[in-house]
Amino acid sequence: MTAEIISIGDELLLRQVINSNQAYIGEQLHSIGVTVDTMTTIGDDLPKILNTFEQALSMHDVVIITGGLGPTHDDITRSAVCEFFGTDLVEDPDALANIKRIFASRRMDILEINRQQALIPRGCTPIQNAHGTAPGYWFERGEKYFAVLPGVPYEMTGMMESFVIPRLMQENQGKVIAHRTLRTTGIAESLLAHRIGSPDQLFEGLSDLSLAYLPSPLGVRLRITARAATRGDADEKLNTIEQKLRAIAEKYIYGVGDEELEQVVGTMLVDRGLRISVAESCTGGLLADRITNTSGSSRYFERGLVTYSNESKIYELGVPQSLIAQHGAVSREVAEAMAFGVRTKANTDIGLSTTGIAGPTGGTTEKPVGLLWIGYSDAEETLALRFDFGTDRRRFKERGAQAALELLRRRLLKIA
Amino acid sequence: MTAEIISIGDELLLRQVINSNQAYIGEQLHSIGVTVDTMTTIGDDLPKILNTFEQALSMHDVVIITGGLGPTHDDITRSAVCEFFGTDLVEDPDALANIKRIFASRRMDILEINRQQALIPRGCTPIQNAHGTAPGYWFERGEKYFAVLPGVPYEMTGMMESFVIPRLMQENQGKVIAHRTLRTTGIAESLLAHRIGSPDQLFEGLSDLSLAYLPSPLGVRLRITARAATRGDADEKLNTIEQKLRAIAEKYIYGVGDEELEQVVGTMLVDRGLRISVAESCTGGLLADRITNTSGSSRYFERGLVTYSNESKIYELGVPQSLIAQHGAVSREVAEAMAFGVRTKANTDIGLSTTGIAGPTGGTTEKPVGLLWIGYSDAEETLALRFDFGTDRRRFKERGAQAALELLRRRLLKIA
Repeated sequence: MTAEIISIGDELLLRQVINSNQAYIGEQLHSIGVTVDTMTTIGDDLPKILNTFEQALSMHDVVIITGGLGPTHDDITRSAVCEFFGTDLVEDPDALANIKRIFASRRMDILEINRQQALIPRGCTPIQNAHGTAPGYWFERGEKYFAVLPGVPYEMTGMMESFVIPRLMQENQGKVIAHRTLRTTGIAESLLAHRIGSPDQLFEGLSDLSLAYLPSPLGVRLRITARAATRGDADEKLNTIEQKLRAIAEKYIYGVGDEELEQVVGTMLVDRGLRISVAESCTGGLLADRITNTSGSSRYFERGLVTYSNESKIYELGVPQSLIAQHGAVSREVAEAMAFGVRTKANTDIGLSTTGIAGPTGGTTEKPVGLLWIGYSDAEETLALRFDFGTDRRRFKERGAQAALELLRRRLLKIA
Repeated sequence: MTAEIISIGDELLLRQVINSNQAYIGEQLHSIGVTVDTMTTIGDDLPKILNTFEQALSMHDVVIITGGLGPTHDDITRSAVCEFFGTDLVEDPDALANIKRIFASRRMDILEINRQQALIPRGCTPIQNAHGTAPGYWFERGEKYFAVLPGVPYEMTGMMESFVIPRLMQENQGKVIAHRTLRTTGIAESLLAHRIGSPDQLFEGLSDLSLAYLPSPLGVRLRITARAATRGDADEKLNTIEQKLRAIAEKYIYGVGDEELEQVVGTMLVDRGLRISVAESCTGGLLADRITNTSGSSRYFERGLVTYSNESKIYELGVPQSLIAQHGAVSREVAEAMAFGVRTKANTDIGLSTTGIAGPTGGTTEKPVGLLWIGYSDAEETLALRFDFGTDRRRFKERGAQAALELLRRRLLKIA
């Protein structure tokens, strides 16, 4: 089975909205063996929409459409669907009940534009929306499947998981594509590719495998794809390749699939019964934010101090004023003193710190914009490492928080 | 002039990479009056790529392609471009010099796969890459323009701004589309749409105008689009509509265009000569992170305390233990005591605080997951407001930090 994903909305053709829906739907369909080979984005333009529907349905078994079901005047997907299937609108009692329930829970009155969302094209199967007011539509035409979903991500994902994926799985038995992603950090894409070498050698003796490098500012992900008759066969191939990749790049691989680095170190801290506190200067709270994104982080995260001013470094963390005067606030010595200071003050097992020059201004020749010191302290050792993360302020903060979490991970594992 | 944007890469058809390039290119082209009416994403599949190139060039004046110029084996865009234009590869001396310069600055040796990136299709105009190794390609065929750019966002944006946009502006004189976006927060899309009413009434007496609602968890943006013969004429229409919208929804509009809420309040704090400190529980550092995303925030941001444990609320902020025992850590009283505590401890003009239940677990009937108290304290008043931001942990943190910044903005303006 092949699929096309079509996103509709003028806003998607400008910068205003970044489209994460297509990527999500693509992964969901791949996971059940449906190959997405085209994603298309078009505006709120009726002839263009009809033409795109026509082409997509002629070339693919599955067409998933998102966007343009909202309550405001610029949403025309519903009219286009009616025209394409030669039908008209009818009120769906379940959808209306859902809308009434949502407005009652918000203690708000229903407006006419809200009530209109209960209208669906006659002849479709409505897809109920657990997270919003607009229902989706499902059409079957012979062996072809056509789904229309809202553009709001959490509404769309709910409908994919509760309806579209189960329905398509019934229709697509016996063909399996499986993926596995290994997440690395601290190594450049070209260096990693050089280490791993040619895919032919990596896949020696096995067929229907591929490897993709997915670089981002926080690290390179390695995605292995295997095709096989059964899920078990595909998984076995993935296991073999994962083992080979780990033998080549073990140190840099911190997680698998969707695992974030903060989840990995969070689990390690819980397993070891350790608690942590952090003192941040240049990362400005992002390190604490990353750590506390994990549910249950209150078990190991005691406190974070964002000591932006010199005064706060001195009075909150006990960094000696003379140390700042002698070495500067951005220095190995101050990073170490911050990590030690927050650990002892918060009475935690580990202290982690950052101090650097986020820019875009404020650098010198000796201490350029992008310079970052990350400090680590536990009962046995206090140390700091130097990094250079460039002149883009936001990317500097993101790479700095990632490197601090990675330093923590490697200290917990006692690897360099 | 109309345009199609084509992104190439198997990784884009899965969830692994969210494509922000298309949105960026769309906005850039719109800003010079080139209308993007289609965005297409396809995999590393040669016949599909050639077919898509063919269709795109037959239907549009401008085709922009991104992706597949990287150093690893899974990048095939370059071969497809050669085949499409019936040409072969030739080494570009400027591109090779650029690659050597980059590797020298990183003190790294050039590998053969890096050197291959200096090969470009014979007959194209190379587009130099200021931020990476792979050059882009520019083809002109009659009145049609065809650009091939890398998929790495900051490399691609550099080439759009230095080459593609200036080149297309020479070719597209006299037609102007202008946009203006007003950013709101704290009001639901349907309520905002109800207040604003029908576009016909809003645009009364003016032509070639449109209004789009762009909702996100942090607020709804209103994008006005005007078409006119000159930029001045278009701007005049935008001014008129902006004034009307401000009369309708002034309180909720915090910024224009790309302005983030933290930049708006940062400017207000600088103008008023005020300094701020924050004490966060459930937002876990995200509020400090938002504030410190603004360059120059050290002028007004003194420190942030992420007081996750009760001990840290008591010892860092001086919240009375009895207050926590009586009302719980998530309460109006504790939010107020945190804001007051951090303000007096850091000796700043303003203190801001958050305490809530981020979930997904830990709620009770009386204090459900999603409950958030935001505290504010200055020399004249100390207060706290209650919010309910739902059960998704990350969205809760994001909406909480946004609401805290908005509360700060309204207190600085002395509006409710």
